Amino acid sequence: MTANSAKQLAKLGQYLQKFCKTTDFNRVMAKAVPVACTKNTCTVELAIDTEHANTYGTLHGGLTASLVDTMTTMALVANDSPPGVSVELSVSYMRPAAVGSTLLIHSEIVKLGKSMAFLTSEFRDKESGKLIATGKHIKHL
Amino acid sequence: MTANSAKQLAKLGQYLQKFCKTTDFNRVMAKAVPVACTKNTCTVELAIDTEHANTYGTLHGGLTASLVDTMTTMALVANDSPPGVSVELSVSYMRPAAVGSTLLIHSEIVKLGKSMAFLTSEFRDKESGKLIATGKHIKHL
Amino acid sequence: MTANSAKQLAKLGQYLQKFCKTTDFNRVMAKAVPVACTKNTCTVELAIDTEHANTYGTLHGGLTASLVDTMTTMALVANDSPPGVSVELSVSYMRPAAVGSTLLIHSEIVKLGKSMAFLTSEFRDKESGKLIATGKHIKHL
Amino acid sequence: MTANSAKQLAKLGQYLQKFCKTTDFNRVMAKAVPVACTKNTCTVELAIDTEHANTYGTLHGGLTASLVDTMTTMALVANDSPPGVSVELSVSYMRPAAVGSTLLIHSEIVKLGKSMAFLTSEFRDKESGKLIATGKHIKHL
Repeated sequence: MTANSAKQLAKLGQYLQKFCKTTDFNRVMAKAVPVACTKNTCTVELAIDTEHANTYGTLHGGLTASLVDTMTTMALVANDSPPGVSVELSVSYMRPAAVGSTLLIHSEIVKLGKSMAFLTSEFRDKESGKLIATGKHIKHL
Repeated sequence: MTANSAKQLAKLGQYLQKFCKTTDFNRVMAKAVPVACTKNTCTVELAIDTEHANTYGTLHGGLTASLVDTMTTMALVANDSPPGVSVELSVSYMRPAAVGSTLLIHSEIVKLGKSMAFLTSEFRDKESGKLIATGKHIKHL
Repeated sequence: MTANSAKQLAKLGQYLQKFCKTTDFNRVMAKAVPVACTKNTCTVELAIDTEHANTYGTLHGGLTASLVDTMTTMALVANDSPPGVSVELSVSYMRPAAVGSTLLIHSEIVKLGKSMAFLTSEFRDKESGKLIATGKHIKHL
Repeated sequence: MTANSAKQLAKLGQYLQKFCKTTDFNRVMAKAVPVACTKNTCTVELAIDTEHANTYGTLHGGLTASLVDTMTTMALVANDSPPGVSVELSVSYMRPAAVGSTLLIHSEIVKLGKSMAFLTSEFRDKESGKLIATGKHIKHL
């Protein structure tokens, strides 16, 4: 890990810690654990519990979307960019992820322009590596 | 209100009541209040509180997406359709909605095919009628 | 029709006429015929011919997307707005539209902000009124 | 190149050749040149000419979308999958690509399920490697 990646990872950890104490909607991300940062990316993991699930006992699609929103924003702030304002967010749902499994969520700044940021997140099952969902997020800076 | 709309509205109310008692992620929709149902649509309102907000004190984009997911599914089940499985969801964010204001969320079954359902949600400020966000949701039945 | 709508319709007609003579990609919209304009909307129709079709003899999904792009831009320029630059475009495909049928394409400026425009198009079969496709288009102004 | 990749590349070439002779909308892809195939991917290049451009002399956003549609479908058929029917297509536009430059378009089958295919395309400037646009395409099989 480069010195810069370590600094970014620490910054990401501080943000995620704030989510643990908040009473606003960011609390739903409270259990995400920082794993790695590189230039323009950050990775967290999340052990899926009932609080993250739908009626079928799998990752709730609304939480998937919420994680696309927040984790791509974490990629921005860990890279010293302003967080910006959401313009468009979309999620493709490929496989269910059951309570008890762990997600790896890898987010990336695909393009950072003067006024627009193009961001993506990939959700994989930590054990099998299988793709659970992908998301994209466009923010106005 | 037709007899059928009244029946649908009652059904919607029962589902939303279940959200009040759940510990799964559907709990984030607990305070949505059923307002109206017609064939292929349902409308709820939500008074925005801190628990629904981001750091800026406005509706959290992740919750907007979660509401697109759940409220379009409510439109399906209130119309006696199976809930299906999410394939794709997207949200366009047009204006912030502050804590203290009330949202009107109008969801619609745009097309119900044999295997695919095309659904939309519109989020408006109850007082001004201004558009806050729009969402679309594609489910596989 | 108000005087202003008539002025907008004339402007739309002039743009569409330019498409008839161009050798750039806008030529694929050449046969779209202006039908109506109101504040923030414009409607055109298109008789589907082989040149608009895929291998199955129905409206090509790539042309649907191209029409979302161009016809929402026509809604902007007919309303004296700058055309802007595309940021995101999406299309939901609901039903095929056969060669020989006619499309009504209704485009709307849903929100025109200082820097972002949110636009939509709806494609209907002219005879049956059935929804063929919907599109959204986000432009940076 | 494996024997299988060579077989896929030949198949892709045959499809693209058909586009050269067609009078339907697939003609707009006629000048795409097959470059490589691997399991679940295919890559083509396209020298941007006036026929592909908008009024500004850069790649037309409608053609970008049309290429997402067709080139992801080429990835399917080159991999011996049925072409399916479009459900949803979206494009994120990151940079203009001028007439005279060459695009590398890399398309991938991200997930092939029993009833749904999730596909993506990436458009890069061949010389600089810079990202021009990304697209996703969901088809029902």
